[in-house]
Amino acid sequence: MVIGDLLSNSAVQAWAIASVLLGLKTMGAGVYTSSLRIRNHVYNAPEDYVMQGHEPPQEPDESIERARRIHQNDLEAGVPFGLIGFVYALTDPSTAALWICFGGFILARTLHSITYARALMPHRTIAFSIGFLILIWMAIASLVELIG
Amino acid sequence: MVIGDLLSNSAVQAWAIASVLLGLKTMGAGVYTSSLRIRNHVYNAPEDYVMQGHEPPQEPDESIERARRIHQNDLEAGVPFGLIGFVYALTDPSTAALWICFGGFILARTLHSITYARALMPHRTIAFSIGFLILIWMAIASLVELIG
Amino acid sequence: MVIGDLLSNSAVQAWAIASVLLGLKTMGAGVYTSSLRIRNHVYNAPEDYVMQGHEPPQEPDESIERARRIHQNDLEAGVPFGLIGFVYALTDPSTAALWICFGGFILARTLHSITYARALMPHRTIAFSIGFLILIWMAIASLVELIG
Repeated sequence: MVIGDLLSNSAVQAWAIASVLLGLKTMGAGVYTSSLRIRNHVYNAPEDYVMQGHEPPQEPDESIERARRIHQNDLEAGVPFGLIGFVYALTDPSTAALWICFGGFILARTLHSITYARALMPHRTIAFSIGFLILIWMAIASLVELIG
Repeated sequence: MVIGDLLSNSAVQAWAIASVLLGLKTMGAGVYTSSLRIRNHVYNAPEDYVMQGHEPPQEPDESIERARRIHQNDLEAGVPFGLIGFVYALTDPSTAALWICFGGFILARTLHSITYARALMPHRTIAFSIGFLILIWMAIASLVELIG
Repeated sequence: MVIGDLLSNSAVQAWAIASVLLGLKTMGAGVYTSSLRIRNHVYNAPEDYVMQGHEPPQEPDESIERARRIHQNDLEAGVPFGLIGFVYALTDPSTAALWICFGGFILARTLHSITYARALMPHRTIAFSIGFLILIWMAIASLVELIG
């Protein structure tokens, strides 16, 4: 069957594993935000405060704003990866390129979240930049293959 | 042709229908926000107020902030679905699993938006959790198939 | 190999090019925001101000808030495109439809960002609406092909 054939390709396999891991990683940022909300009694909506029996805080909670920025940055990286990653896999790159791009991206994005949560600079910028450059590389390599 | 073969697979078909419906549902959250903006005269940018001949409100409009949170939550669920859903379909799960995962996800996300708009708790949390668990299930089932 | 076959289809090729270009365009919105942050000394996190030796501004910087809205709007359009675009390509539309949908979408989204950055109304709304209608068209055409 065609479907089995598609997943039997090692580039598509590598993309599939990376894509699922990135999905889980992004969801992890949401779980992290939620856990801080529960711990700090800072919720999403007025009805949540009523249900939990707490008052909204006077000022935004910085740890939760930080968690939201981490999650938002994951979306800002996850959308381009979703748009570029599968196309790149379909151009059937070398095994070395696959490992560097997909493995490197998951690692860079995970380190970005950890360094952001711990307020580590310039580590956060380095992790972000590595992920960004990998996306640029995959995009250019794909376009060269598609148009060139 | 290969393309026809891919869509002839029932798992890819189920994913394709769910993916398009989820895209439309997310766009619906944007339309909902826009309609509240027009009704309440609360816009995105300074030039919109000039064009519409209204003054910006002194405080954020809670109904529009709620609509924005609904839309944002759709993005936070749509990105992992985009990253995980197609991979899961490629692992060719059973028809029952497809219906529960894809049908359940669309239903849960739609109910999340409705219960959020109507400030219904804990219904909103239940709807969110069902969608979340379906994503986790699809991710783990995919990884087991890919790596196991 | 199946992978080569998939990319040899002209609809998948057109989608692949559009998807990569949209990914790059969305990343461009992030780069635009970052460049304004560096120029205006307005950063993401408290530790960034410490590292750069600047004080946080008293009020939000409108040019950066505008850049963030541009980026956010790209995510709100990129998620539905990611969910709908590949499915649409798999339904193997005509060459004319491919050009209008994929070319038109990239063009409309690029014009949306430019007109938003320059505060041009109603040009921004027109560009947004064209992109929106193309998504709706692709979604309906896909569902008709899948279900009809």
